[in-house]
Amino acid sequence: MLAVGVSSRRKEGPEKLCGVAKYIDDYHLPGCLFGVTLRSSIPHGTIKNIRFDPKFPWDDCVIARAADIPGQNYVDLIEHDQPLLAEERILHAMEPILLIGHPVRATAYQALEHIEVDYQESEPVLSMEDSIALRQVLYRSDNVFKRILIEKGDTGAGMAKSDFIVEGEYRVPSQEQAYIENNGVAAWEEDDGTLVIMGSMQCPYYVHKAMKPLFPRREEKIRIIQTTTGGGFGGKEEYPNMIGGHAALLAIKSGRPVKMIYDRHEDMLATTKRHPARIRHRTGVRRDGTLFAQEIEIVMDGGAYVTLSPVVLSRGAIHASGPYQCPNVRILAKSMATNNPPSGAFRGFGAPQTLFAAELHMEKIAATLGIDSLALRRRNLFRQGSVTATGQVLRESVGASEVLERAVQRAKYVERRKECKQWNRRKDRTSWRGVGLSVVFHGAGFTGAGEVHLASRAGLSLTREGEIRVEAASTEIGQGTSSMLAQIVAETLGVPYQWIQIDTPDTARVPNSGPTVASRTCMVVGSLLQRAALRLKTAVAELQGTFPHTRAGLRTAARKLANGKPAVSFIEEYRQPDEIQWDEEKYKGDAYGVYSYAAMVVELEINKLTYEVRIRRLTTAQDIGKAINPVLVEGQIMGGTAQALGYALLENVIFQNGVMQNAQFTNYIIPTTLDTPPMSVELVEKPYSRGPFGAKGVGELPFDVPAPAVAAAVFHATGLFIPELPLLPERISRAKRDQTAR
Amino acid sequence: MLAVGVSSRRKEGPEKLCGVAKYIDDYHLPGCLFGVTLRSSIPHGTIKNIRFDPKFPWDDCVIARAADIPGQNYVDLIEHDQPLLAEERILHAMEPILLIGHPVRATAYQALEHIEVDYQESEPVLSMEDSIALRQVLYRSDNVFKRILIEKGDTGAGMAKSDFIVEGEYRVPSQEQAYIENNGVAAWEEDDGTLVIMGSMQCPYYVHKAMKPLFPRREEKIRIIQTTTGGGFGGKEEYPNMIGGHAALLAIKSGRPVKMIYDRHEDMLATTKRHPARIRHRTGVRRDGTLFAQEIEIVMDGGAYVTLSPVVLSRGAIHASGPYQCPNVRILAKSMATNNPPSGAFRGFGAPQTLFAAELHMEKIAATLGIDSLALRRRNLFRQGSVTATGQVLRESVGASEVLERAVQRAKYVERRKECKQWNRRKDRTSWRGVGLSVVFHGAGFTGAGEVHLASRAGLSLTREGEIRVEAASTEIGQGTSSMLAQIVAETLGVPYQWIQIDTPDTARVPNSGPTVASRTCMVVGSLLQRAALRLKTAVAELQGTFPHTRAGLRTAARKLANGKPAVSFIEEYRQPDEIQWDEEKYKGDAYGVYSYAAMVVELEINKLTYEVRIRRLTTAQDIGKAINPVLVEGQIMGGTAQALGYALLENVIFQNGVMQNAQFTNYIIPTTLDTPPMSVELVEKPYSRGPFGAKGVGELPFDVPAPAVAAAVFHATGLFIPELPLLPERISRAKRDQTAR
Repeated sequence: MLAVGVSSRRKEGPEKLCGVAKYIDDYHLPGCLFGVTLRSSIPHGTIKNIRFDPKFPWDDCVIARAADIPGQNYVDLIEHDQPLLAEERILHAMEPILLIGHPVRATAYQALEHIEVDYQESEPVLSMEDSIALRQVLYRSDNVFKRILIEKGDTGAGMAKSDFIVEGEYRVPSQEQAYIENNGVAAWEEDDGTLVIMGSMQCPYYVHKAMKPLFPRREEKIRIIQTTTGGGFGGKEEYPNMIGGHAALLAIKSGRPVKMIYDRHEDMLATTKRHPARIRHRTGVRRDGTLFAQEIEIVMDGGAYVTLSPVVLSRGAIHASGPYQCPNVRILAKSMATNNPPSGAFRGFGAPQTLFAAELHMEKIAATLGIDSLALRRRNLFRQGSVTATGQVLRESVGASEVLERAVQRAKYVERRKECKQWNRRKDRTSWRGVGLSVVFHGAGFTGAGEVHLASRAGLSLTREGEIRVEAASTEIGQGTSSMLAQIVAETLGVPYQWIQIDTPDTARVPNSGPTVASRTCMVVGSLLQRAALRLKTAVAELQGTFPHTRAGLRTAARKLANGKPAVSFIEEYRQPDEIQWDEEKYKGDAYGVYSYAAMVVELEINKLTYEVRIRRLTTAQDIGKAINPVLVEGQIMGGTAQALGYALLENVIFQNGVMQNAQFTNYIIPTTLDTPPMSVELVEKPYSRGPFGAKGVGELPFDVPAPAVAAAVFHATGLFIPELPLLPERISRAKRDQTAR
Repeated sequence: MLAVGVSSRRKEGPEKLCGVAKYIDDYHLPGCLFGVTLRSSIPHGTIKNIRFDPKFPWDDCVIARAADIPGQNYVDLIEHDQPLLAEERILHAMEPILLIGHPVRATAYQALEHIEVDYQESEPVLSMEDSIALRQVLYRSDNVFKRILIEKGDTGAGMAKSDFIVEGEYRVPSQEQAYIENNGVAAWEEDDGTLVIMGSMQCPYYVHKAMKPLFPRREEKIRIIQTTTGGGFGGKEEYPNMIGGHAALLAIKSGRPVKMIYDRHEDMLATTKRHPARIRHRTGVRRDGTLFAQEIEIVMDGGAYVTLSPVVLSRGAIHASGPYQCPNVRILAKSMATNNPPSGAFRGFGAPQTLFAAELHMEKIAATLGIDSLALRRRNLFRQGSVTATGQVLRESVGASEVLERAVQRAKYVERRKECKQWNRRKDRTSWRGVGLSVVFHGAGFTGAGEVHLASRAGLSLTREGEIRVEAASTEIGQGTSSMLAQIVAETLGVPYQWIQIDTPDTARVPNSGPTVASRTCMVVGSLLQRAALRLKTAVAELQGTFPHTRAGLRTAARKLANGKPAVSFIEEYRQPDEIQWDEEKYKGDAYGVYSYAAMVVELEINKLTYEVRIRRLTTAQDIGKAINPVLVEGQIMGGTAQALGYALLENVIFQNGVMQNAQFTNYIIPTTLDTPPMSVELVEKPYSRGPFGAKGVGELPFDVPAPAVAAAVFHATGLFIPELPLLPERISRAKRDQTAR
């Protein structure tokens, strides 16, 4: 193949490299105001009064409040519970109350200092436990945003027939997406009444949909343009609906362009983070290690508003059993309302939380049975024909065993485990060493009928000048969308990769190919483009036999094909394969079209004095169907791994009274290159018949696998089974103390 | 009080005593045919062909099949899944296939012998376990008729904080209602096209509703009349819809009256029975005996069609925690489809199943903690202000502690336990003796918003001749409805009980006061009549100062009041009290308006040779709010207790390939007077502010309490903890063998 499987240069690489790529704050907008947000200082209560310091020059300020919203005051996502601006009720600290626009950025921030808000405070609910206990009723009658029950077989009977029952409780914390570029947008209204929002985002059409109820107007009078985006990781899936609405409100009220750009502190304090979760496992297992019954209970902290909690919970629940076949499974999951800032989308979307528990629990089971956890995994791992917890039969592309065996072999897992044991026997060592393993799966695309509802549309256009343009709303956010899509098109047409042009999406110009989330872009949008390319190819071929190999030839063909029109385009719409059946009400059937698989071996050492953990070696094998661009794929894997190592070892969001206490990089520690170990990555390609050239998803998978492997390695090194993240030195030393105390 | 609290003579007593009461088979209907039913001999499959023996004189027979049904072929209840006559698909043995009508009963039965049915058999699903395992898909995608999840607090956290976790699995069997009179009806069509169905039934308006889709016609052209009914116990709640439809179909096809009367064998083989169930408990408890977390899993065998399974399951789930307060509760219940004959309503309606498990499990918990089960109950029992598993606050009329203390004291529970221990020490005894205890609660009326949907209507009419008639569709089935309702009216009006007239209901004459089920008649219908009586009283008073004390006076008043009309009537409709709040979707809130409570102490002895159990003494105290007629109430309690002793010790429905093998009284053993011990009954009256004169419900409560007390006594006598009913000698001796084997 010429284009696919080749590590071609990033489409947007050069301009980023040369610093000419324009991020939203780089745009000069004449007459632009700068918008800032007044936020609640309390987590729960009501606004009694807002006082403006009379000594401040308010006349130069534009002030916008809920009452200024021309339409309805809610941020459109799943439910309509979250206001764009608080009216009376306050449900979390940092909740937006009013907006100030001023030509001078610094003055806008000063203005905030001259506003006093009087509150009537209420008792806040700051933990899942207090929410379940209904200390306060925050949402409907029971604080439950969403409840999911997955049942397979008969766990009660399974437990009764098991030789051992192993229980465990696992806790995973919140996490900040920490993209390089903070959330930021600009907005203005054109003379023809078109509302334009431009900025850093993952899902232009989500923003488009969200603006309609806030600022009622015909759809074509709303235009959303993505600018070069410095990372998203889910953190720009839903929040642009909020900040976009804020900028638009100020712009409409002032009649001028408005820029809203968060600094790091505000972005960390106010925007969504990963859902903290508590997962309980109760597993019935036969003496020989066969899993016989799994009872799993998941609780997630959804924060103050629903946002995306129901779907995050859904992915978490579906992946909670781990990549193992078990005849009897019951998964009961719920997402609770609290007075913490809303949790939201973050790479992995619930799966890293539940997979950490599932995988570390395998170590506990192995220890209980006194068998090797590798053997335990081999015995129970998904195979072709296995049936998942939702009753899905895995028909094809099941790379679970392959990734496990490849990782184990490549890392010399067994030998290294032995060597570490040797090492640890010597009392004069200054460190303990351990090797840990984990294996995970991750569904590609939206759950069940989700893709049907999205009905994504994408395609190609051929201009009369012979330019081949990708027509899709899928965003390049650093992960390589542009290059990957272009490669699929180039390969299908049999033309050079450089011929394919792709721009950052503009809802006025491209169809809605769905959000850039859920590891769906390559598999879903890529397939649409492949189909479009085939149609284009046929059209040209019908016209003149073959597809041209020269620019000149293409231009001639294009002019004929376009005949008079500026361009001719070929748009495809998603069609759900008949064999994918899903019962949303019962949570039964094909939760995803296909799954990707990853295994990882982590070797680490722990300083006996400081309890610092250093990853010495990291080996992973991942089955993503097909690597369209191997270097980009490895980049995804290494990046996701580094981010997950932060989740496992360093990143510790500290909330007090609903406010993040360490909302800056000086004390919210993410991994640097120095914290990132040498990584050995192997790609396993078990093609998926419905993915372009066999491709599945790779965006989230790499995040799922490191944390449990790290915890397993700590367990191996020290004998300390620590079921909670992050594995900070403090936490490990405390566990050590408790151990020796016993 | 003159009428209420007085044990007045049964209204219908004399005519039953003298044998002039007319049961359906006593009616002579000129030109009447006798109807019989051809039933499936296989539990699962399809009908290929039906062959009629040419040598048989078919010309004198009327034959009706599904194709003859003028309307839709389903028996109306909750779902529309059950056909009146099977078309092709057979889902249980004894399923009706066709009907034969013949003037001579014996010939009708002979005719059945001359019909051959060819089947294509399928693998039958005969256990809940096989249904859960989806051996065959019988209903929707997962065989689940209904699934219920009740969640309170956080059981996982509760378990973690508990000192002990006690697990147990309990199994309860099917049971036959064994009413004295079998199911039977007669049907005919009047010249004006009115369809009349007369017979033995609990709910005339259920039958009325069920006939409409089968035989489309205006409502007033359907008339259902209850005849004197020899017992129901739930067994005549839904089945008359079926047999009524059969008789009507033959009647319409033949143009003649048709009688269908089952003999005992057919009634036992074909009609509904109690739901068998499997209940699992996992209970977290503090060292001091405080219940801290309950996880309860309920599975019921619903049989081949939905019938009333969803509501039976609902009552079972709501009562599954027992009358105890516990901060963290999770109840997960489901009713499964199998190829057994449909299970249906039976006194207690799911509660006896789950309460047996809940109460016997208290014995297990006490044994595990090494404390006395009486102390354990005292510590956790419901009190005023307690919150149930559904989150209902028990505002008033909570007699749990009173009934427990009264029963314990009256039975000398503690002393007798000691004496038994003494007795058992002597090895030369020919028996073991033991004393067992249990305490239960039972909700009165329909669940949650059920009564709102029923919108029952009942009242009184005063004829110009001065007759006071009760206008209600509530049926006298031996439990004393007529007397009890008449007493409430008499007391309210302040007239002699004899003045109140009440007939068996006829849908052409009385309003729909709802079904005679769910311990609702006294509390719900009684209250309507009390309100109606007050209106009548006021009306008469306004007319002439006071309410007359003489027949003559009443006649005068009546004539004035009726002025010209034959009668004047006062009908009341049910209004839900505002404080009753119920969320059907979340199963949260006030499951019932109020609960009745019962405690029982059973003293028994077990023959060391034969393992036969003999109940020596039985003491019970029951809080039913107010006993309108103490003798009738004691009758209910004694009758229910005897029936429950059969459930606990004797009644053993044996299914083979979906067919009851012991469908006659020679080998389906129910208790006789000789099996019924001396019973000491004490009535505790904690009035309910919304019940007539404080009354709650008594119909089902007495059935809930005996079985667990018996099992507890067996445990006390022998040390054998047997979690399954019935406690046949075989089962006890087997348990003994296993015990000594260990």
